[in-house]
Amino acid sequence: MSTIKRRPGRRPGSADTRGEILTAARKVFAEKGFDKATVRGIAREAQVDPALVHHYFDTKEGMFVAAMQLPLNPSEFVPLLLEGPREDIGERLVRTILGVTAAPETREPMLALLRSAMTNEQAAAMFREFITNALLFQVADRLEVPHLRLEAAFAQMFGMIMGRYVIKLEPLASADPEELVALLGPTVQRYLTG
Amino acid sequence: MSTIKRRPGRRPGSADTRGEILTAARKVFAEKGFDKATVRGIAREAQVDPALVHHYFDTKEGMFVAAMQLPLNPSEFVPLLLEGPREDIGERLVRTILGVTAAPETREPMLALLRSAMTNEQAAAMFREFITNALLFQVADRLEVPHLRLEAAFAQMFGMIMGRYVIKLEPLASADPEELVALLGPTVQRYLTG
Repeated sequence: MSTIKRRPGRRPGSADTRGEILTAARKVFAEKGFDKATVRGIAREAQVDPALVHHYFDTKEGMFVAAMQLPLNPSEFVPLLLEGPREDIGERLVRTILGVTAAPETREPMLALLRSAMTNEQAAAMFREFITNALLFQVADRLEVPHLRLEAAFAQMFGMIMGRYVIKLEPLASADPEELVALLGPTVQRYLTG
Repeated sequence: MSTIKRRPGRRPGSADTRGEILTAARKVFAEKGFDKATVRGIAREAQVDPALVHHYFDTKEGMFVAAMQLPLNPSEFVPLLLEGPREDIGERLVRTILGVTAAPETREPMLALLRSAMTNEQAAAMFREFITNALLFQVADRLEVPHLRLEAAFAQMFGMIMGRYVIKLEPLASADPEELVALLGPTVQRYLTG
């Protein structure tokens, strides 16, 4: 694309460049959604070379995760989830989600994304495309279970996070994580392998 | 309370009075939460006699349901849910929730309440108090199961509604209701009786 240019006087390796790519990524993801956003389009928005975007972020998924400050990159999370024994996958999933949402620093950016998906149609579309294509369908296809079953598991996890951290239902909000693993793990297990 | 007075020239039975009580109720519920709001306080806010509030709305729950335009009154819903065979309670609950959320007219006020609970701490507190005291704990105590189990079932239902109608995940958004009853019913059944 002939319109791509670097701004003069900026070093390609600076923290500033990375930050500007992320700002551009947030804008492009919000406008185009996850599916239609491209590395090339984000590079153009940031006025940098696409190769530089690839240098910082391996994939579009990786860029989304960094732009939204999500604590989990599906490209690492999905293999990890599928790696262990298949009969524990439900408990492992619940334990992982509770682990990454335990600290406010990692939880808040996730909640911000979920909140905006609840209240803004454009943000909902972006979130929907990301969660289905980068996460749910990946896991469903590897496990060879229908997509609907992964979405049922997602619904259970989503409701748990919202009930625990946003609506703050008691006793859910202060329940021991392992109690929730024991209660919700079999549900997720049934959806994923039952 | 000596400060309670009727505005002159308004008939106690008019539609207008009912509407003004509901407006007052929304204000008082938002400010005080569900637990601390009282019929007396709402009557004072609406400048009508508390007896008139009772005439229109049997209970505080009923007034909340009317004020928020919710399609389900827990005082009718809870007995209905508990009435049928205990071994079908999971399927019955999922089917009922899908039934009342099928039409946009009944779904939208519910979603409005959920959205505001997601984004506003005061609305979250109001929703939390209502859902726990008027619904979840009622069912849990009648079934003699721990409150946490009802909240796990709520999380599953909440996530399903959000995934289906707000995030609009496919295939969840267009799934046949009976397919969802078959998939999610056993989960709710296990939480409630398992």
